[in-house]
Amino acid sequence: MGKDLRKRLYKNLAPEAWPQPGLSPTNKFIYSLIVFSALFAVLETEKTIYDIAPSMFSLIEILIVSVFIVEYTARIYAVGEIEKYSGVRGRIRYIFSFWSIIDLLAILPFLLSLTSSNAFMLRLLRLWRLMRVARLGRYSQAMAAIVGAISLRRYELILSMAVAAIILVISSACLYLLEGDIQEEAFGSIPRALWWSIATLTTVGYGDVTPVTALGKIFAAITAITGVGMIAMPTGILASAFSDILQKHKNQRD
Amino acid sequence: MGKDLRKRLYKNLAPEAWPQPGLSPTNKFIYSLIVFSALFAVLETEKTIYDIAPSMFSLIEILIVSVFIVEYTARIYAVGEIEKYSGVRGRIRYIFSFWSIIDLLAILPFLLSLTSSNAFMLRLLRLWRLMRVARLGRYSQAMAAIVGAISLRRYELILSMAVAAIILVISSACLYLLEGDIQEEAFGSIPRALWWSIATLTTVGYGDVTPVTALGKIFAAITAITGVGMIAMPTGILASAFSDILQKHKNQRD
Amino acid sequence: MGKDLRKRLYKNLAPEAWPQPGLSPTNKFIYSLIVFSALFAVLETEKTIYDIAPSMFSLIEILIVSVFIVEYTARIYAVGEIEKYSGVRGRIRYIFSFWSIIDLLAILPFLLSLTSSNAFMLRLLRLWRLMRVARLGRYSQAMAAIVGAISLRRYELILSMAVAAIILVISSACLYLLEGDIQEEAFGSIPRALWWSIATLTTVGYGDVTPVTALGKIFAAITAITGVGMIAMPTGILASAFSDILQKHKNQRD
Amino acid sequence: MGKDLRKRLYKNLAPEAWPQPGLSPTNKFIYSLIVFSALFAVLETEKTIYDIAPSMFSLIEILIVSVFIVEYTARIYAVGEIEKYSGVRGRIRYIFSFWSIIDLLAILPFLLSLTSSNAFMLRLLRLWRLMRVARLGRYSQAMAAIVGAISLRRYELILSMAVAAIILVISSACLYLLEGDIQEEAFGSIPRALWWSIATLTTVGYGDVTPVTALGKIFAAITAITGVGMIAMPTGILASAFSDILQKHKNQRD
Repeated sequence: MGKDLRKRLYKNLAPEAWPQPGLSPTNKFIYSLIVFSALFAVLETEKTIYDIAPSMFSLIEILIVSVFIVEYTARIYAVGEIEKYSGVRGRIRYIFSFWSIIDLLAILPFLLSLTSSNAFMLRLLRLWRLMRVARLGRYSQAMAAIVGAISLRRYELILSMAVAAIILVISSACLYLLEGDIQEEAFGSIPRALWWSIATLTTVGYGDVTPVTALGKIFAAITAITGVGMIAMPTGILASAFSDILQKHKNQRD
Repeated sequence: MGKDLRKRLYKNLAPEAWPQPGLSPTNKFIYSLIVFSALFAVLETEKTIYDIAPSMFSLIEILIVSVFIVEYTARIYAVGEIEKYSGVRGRIRYIFSFWSIIDLLAILPFLLSLTSSNAFMLRLLRLWRLMRVARLGRYSQAMAAIVGAISLRRYELILSMAVAAIILVISSACLYLLEGDIQEEAFGSIPRALWWSIATLTTVGYGDVTPVTALGKIFAAITAITGVGMIAMPTGILASAFSDILQKHKNQRD
Repeated sequence: MGKDLRKRLYKNLAPEAWPQPGLSPTNKFIYSLIVFSALFAVLETEKTIYDIAPSMFSLIEILIVSVFIVEYTARIYAVGEIEKYSGVRGRIRYIFSFWSIIDLLAILPFLLSLTSSNAFMLRLLRLWRLMRVARLGRYSQAMAAIVGAISLRRYELILSMAVAAIILVISSACLYLLEGDIQEEAFGSIPRALWWSIATLTTVGYGDVTPVTALGKIFAAITAITGVGMIAMPTGILASAFSDILQKHKNQRD
Repeated sequence: MGKDLRKRLYKNLAPEAWPQPGLSPTNKFIYSLIVFSALFAVLETEKTIYDIAPSMFSLIEILIVSVFIVEYTARIYAVGEIEKYSGVRGRIRYIFSFWSIIDLLAILPFLLSLTSSNAFMLRLLRLWRLMRVARLGRYSQAMAAIVGAISLRRYELILSMAVAAIILVISSACLYLLEGDIQEEAFGSIPRALWWSIATLTTVGYGDVTPVTALGKIFAAITAITGVGMIAMPTGILASAFSDILQKHKNQRD
C-alpha cells in the first residue's frame, strides 16, 4: 500500500510522470501557488500595501511555505519511484540535485526565520521551477523552436552584437571628446558616456542625459539612426531563422 | 408591401445581406456616423473646444443619437427577415444578443439623459460595431491572416512573453536592491521599480525615473539591451508566421 | 542644326531619354544641385549660420536659381521633341503639367522677390523632382518591390492600423478618467491624453507627460506592452510581404 | 634553424596560416589582450577609477604595449614567409600595408610618450584588428550572410532611407513653422528642429525638446507614427533578405 501511495504521489508530483497531456491537478495547484507566491513576494516589498495588514501577509506566507514544505518532503519520498533516486543514498543525491537545491533555497529563509530584506530574492527563485514546465508538452516544441532559431543563427547574432558593441564604444568615445568638458557629469569619461550611448542605441532614450553642442547632436543623431539598424538587424535574422526552423520541421514530417 | 419594405430594410441594414461587395449606401452612412460620433465624443471632453459652442455640441449629439435610435428600431423591425429572430419572441432574443446590447448601451446614456462625465465611455462602445465590418469581404481575409498568424505561433508568443515577464521581475528586483534606499520614490519597492522596468524593456524610456548609481546603470543597460531582444523576438516570430499562413493559403489554392 | 541642338538638349535633360543606364552628366549636376539647394535652404533658416555671411547666402541663391531658370527654359524648348508637347500649344500644355508647375513654384519665390520666411517651403518643393529619378533604372525595381509589398498586404496593414487607432482611443480614455482630475494639463481631456498615448504606443516616450497614480501607471504599462505588439505586427506583415514579392519575381523569371 | 623558427612564428601569428580551425594559442592571447587593452583604455578615462591606482594603470599599459611591440616586430620578421613580403623591400611594403599601419598607430602614442587625452583614440584603433578574425572560419560565413543580405537589398534599403530623410526634412520644416517663434531654442530653425525630428522618427524620444502647441503635437504624432513605419520597413526588408540568402546557400549545396 505504501508503494501504491508512493506511485500515486510520484505521478501527481513529477510533471513528466503524469499520463495525460498537461499538468496533474496537484501540480496545477502547486504551479499556480508558485506564481501567486512570487506575486506576493513582489507586493510585500511595497510598504503602502504591506502596512494595510502586516499580520495577513505573515499568515499567508506561513500558509504558502507550509504547502511548499509538505510538497518538498512528499517529493523526496515519492522520488524513490525512480531507480536512480531510490534508497537513502538516492534521496540524498536527489536533495543535492540542481532543482532540489533551488526548492530548498526558496523554503530556507522562512525556516531559518530570516527577515533580511533580501530574503525575497530567494523566494523569487521559485519562479525557476516554471522553467521545468516549459519543457513539457506543446510548450516544449515552442521552446525548441525559439532555442533552435537562436542557435541556428548564433554566429550572425553574435556578430551583430559585436558590431553593436563596437558602435557603442565609438559613439561613447566621440561624445566624450566632444562634450566631456562641457557636461562633466554626463560625458566626463567613456564609461559615463556609455550610459547615454546605450539609451540611444537601444532607442530607449531616457533623456536624462543629452548632448548640447551642435557637433555632439550630429553624432548623437548618427547613433540614433544606427540604433534603428541595431534593432532591424537581429529582428531580421531571427525572422528568417524562425522561417527556416519551421521549414525543417515540415520537411521532416513529409 | 410591409414584407417588401422589411426585406429592403434588412438588405440595407445588415452588412452581410447586401448583395454587392462592400457596404450598402445606408450602412456606409451609418458607419461613417459611428466614426464621426466617436471623434465627436472624444473632442467634447476637451473644454477649450466644447466651450466654443456648447449648444452646437448638444444639438449635434441629439441629431446623431436620433439617427441611431431610428436605425436601432428599424433594425429590430427588419431582423424579422431571419427565421431565428422573427416574431415578438425572436425580436426579444435579438435585443438581448451581444451586438444589440452594445447598440442599446450606446444610446442609453442619452435616453436616460445621463450627463455624468463617464457617459462618453458608453458612446465609445459604438466603435465595437466597426469590428463587425471587419468580418466582411476583403478585410475578413486580412483578419483571418492576422488571427491565424498569431494563433499558429501562440505558444512561441506566450513563451516569449513569459520570458519577458520574468526578466521584468528580475530587473525590477535588482534595481530595488541597488537603488531602493537612494531613490525611495522610484525604486522603494519592486512594484515601483516595475514602472521603470516596463518603460525600459519596451524601449519607451520616459526618463521620469532613471538609475543614478553606477551599478544601477549597468543593470539598466542590460535591461535596455534585453529590451531590444524582447522586440526582436515577437517580431521575428510574427514575420515567419505570416509567411507560413500565406504559404498555406497558396498551397490550398494550387 | 536647331533641331540637332534640341535633340541633344532633350537627351541630356529628360532622364528617361538618356541612352545609357544612369543619369546624363547634365542631370547628375542638376540633381546634385537640387539636393544642395535643399540643404542650403535648410541651413539658411539657422540664424547663427546665416549671419556669418548673409551676402554669400544671397549670392549662392542667385547662382542656384539662375541655373534652374536656364534649365527650366531649356527643358521647355527641348520638350518639343515629344509630339505631345511640340508647338506653342504643346509647350503651354507642358508648362501646366504636374512636374513643370512644381519646378515653376520652386523658382517663383525668387522671381517675385518674395522674402517671406515661408518661401523656403517652396524651395523644398524641388526635392519632389528626386522622385522622378526613383522611377528610373535599378531604383525603379526597388520602388516597385516596396510599393508592391505594401499594396500586397494593404488590408492587413490597414487593419493593424485600425486596431492601433482603437487602442489609442481606449488608452487615452482610460488615462483621462484616471488622471484627468490630477493632471489637468496632461490628461484633462481625451485629445490631450492622446498626445501621451501616441508617444507611448509608438515607444517614443518623451516623458514630458507621465501618469503619477498607481492605476494610471498600470494602464500605461499595458499600453507600452501593446506598443511593442504595434511595432511587431506591421514589421512582421511587411517582412512576409517582401519575401512573397521576391518569390513572385523569381517564379516569373523561371 | 632560423627558417624553422620563422615558419613556426608565422603559423602562430598569422590567423590564416594556423592549420586547425580557430585561432592559435598565441593569437588567442593576443586577441584577448586587444579586447582587454581596449576595455582598459575605456576605463582609464574615468578619473574616479584611474585615481584609485594611477601607477598601476601606467604599469599595465607598459606591459600591454611591450607585448604589442614584441608581437609587431615578430610579425614583421615572420611575414618573410610569404614571397610578397620577403626581403627588406618586402618588409617595408608590409610595414606600409593597411593593417600594419593600424598596428603601428596603436603603439605609436606610447613610443612617442604622448600623454594627450586623445591618445586613447589611437589605442582603440586596435579593435580594428578584431575585424580580421571575423573573416576566418564560421564567422566568415555569418559575415558573408549579413553583408550579402544588405547588398542584396541595397536599393530597397537606400530608398527607404531616402524616404526617411525626406520625411525628416518635412517634419522639421513643419515644426519650425509651427513652433519656431514660441520655442526659439528648440525649433528656431530647421537644423534645430532636425534634432527633435530624428529623436522622434527613430523612436528614441529623449524628451528634452517637445512641441507645446496643439498643431505642433498633431504633426509630432504623425512623425512618431511614421517612425514606426521607418523601423518596420528596413526590418522587413532585412528579414526577407536573410531568408533569400539562406535559400540561395541551400540551393547551391543541393
